[in-house]
Amino acid sequence: MAGVRRMDLGEALALGPGWRHACHALLYAPDPGMLFGRIPLRYAVLMQMRFDGRLGFPGGFVDAQDSSLEDGLNRELWEELGDTASAFRVERTDYRSSHAGTRPRVVAHFYAKRLTLEQLQAVEARAPQAKDHGLEVLGLVRVPLYTLRDGVGGLPAFLENSFIGAAREQLLEALRDLELLEPGSISNLKIPPSK
Amino acid sequence: MAGVRRMDLGEALALGPGWRHACHALLYAPDPGMLFGRIPLRYAVLMQMRFDGRLGFPGGFVDAQDSSLEDGLNRELWEELGDTASAFRVERTDYRSSHAGTRPRVVAHFYAKRLTLEQLQAVEARAPQAKDHGLEVLGLVRVPLYTLRDGVGGLPAFLENSFIGAAREQLLEALRDLELLEPGSISNLKIPPSK
Repeated sequence: MAGVRRMDLGEALALGPGWRHACHALLYAPDPGMLFGRIPLRYAVLMQMRFDGRLGFPGGFVDAQDSSLEDGLNRELWEELGDTASAFRVERTDYRSSHAGTRPRVVAHFYAKRLTLEQLQAVEARAPQAKDHGLEVLGLVRVPLYTLRDGVGGLPAFLENSFIGAAREQLLEALRDLELLEPGSISNLKIPPSK
Repeated sequence: MAGVRRMDLGEALALGPGWRHACHALLYAPDPGMLFGRIPLRYAVLMQMRFDGRLGFPGGFVDAQDSSLEDGLNRELWEELGDTASAFRVERTDYRSSHAGTRPRVVAHFYAKRLTLEQLQAVEARAPQAKDHGLEVLGLVRVPLYTLRDGVGGLPAFLENSFIGAAREQLLEALRDLELLEPGSISNLKIPPSK
């Protein structure tokens, strides 16, 4: 994405009081399921449709009252995902990256948290009762990690949807760095350019 | 969409045995909620993220065993949305339109069913336990019917996502014909061209 700059966490935390910090989390779990009985799902990876019609990760802005980035993130997860989000906690050890530049004087921190499939299914089951459901959050969706025989359906078509800020780049980074795709498939993936 | 032809139901039913019939339904309910305490939601309208990474409406192909288009549609709704879909039935009176041409020898019939908000919330709450969840259906999302102050966020950005077949045209037709948007706003809506 034009103008987005990756920075390390130390640099981001030294940006000064004029900057706002946003934290978002990719929640994922190993999934042994097979689509149509033959296509391995590999992992369930959660994103959400936002109030603005774009896909993003759960999370939001850290407030002055939050004692840490992770306190702010876990508070936002609770508001957006409901009380199952208190069954786990996203920690500094789940931190992945920071990006500045999608909005002026905002730095976006990104985390990835591995859950069990049962924990992730509980998040999905409870999310429609969360405080923000139907308001800031229009629904949770799983990310397809496979590519169908036509070479487009699945992850390539999913990546052509509308994404907020750095979410698409964060997703691709996590899929690669956490090795969530079939080995060798990310280099073969025809990734459409971001819009 | 290029090559898509609208036809009436009589013409579609006379197409002969070489054609397959698909039926999909827009489920909606009046929603008195306000986003950020000031933007009226008007209606909750459901779509779903499909296994192929595109947005569509719940439904699917009618089988030879189905005794009518609506029997096939309600069977598919039950598989995709779970047993709350048996709390209502989509009927011929909910029929809206038929389109041919998105795939060879397939005609897609479209229905819109008005629910109470409680019925729609029950569908959302139960959908993660449906047979097809995490497989053919990756999650339900509500459609934002408003446009944010920037003129893009909300329905215009939502319409830039990836849609299957005639789903985007079916959505726009239903929003207009059922008068789900704020009066006068559909003519002002900057609708991005379909991809």
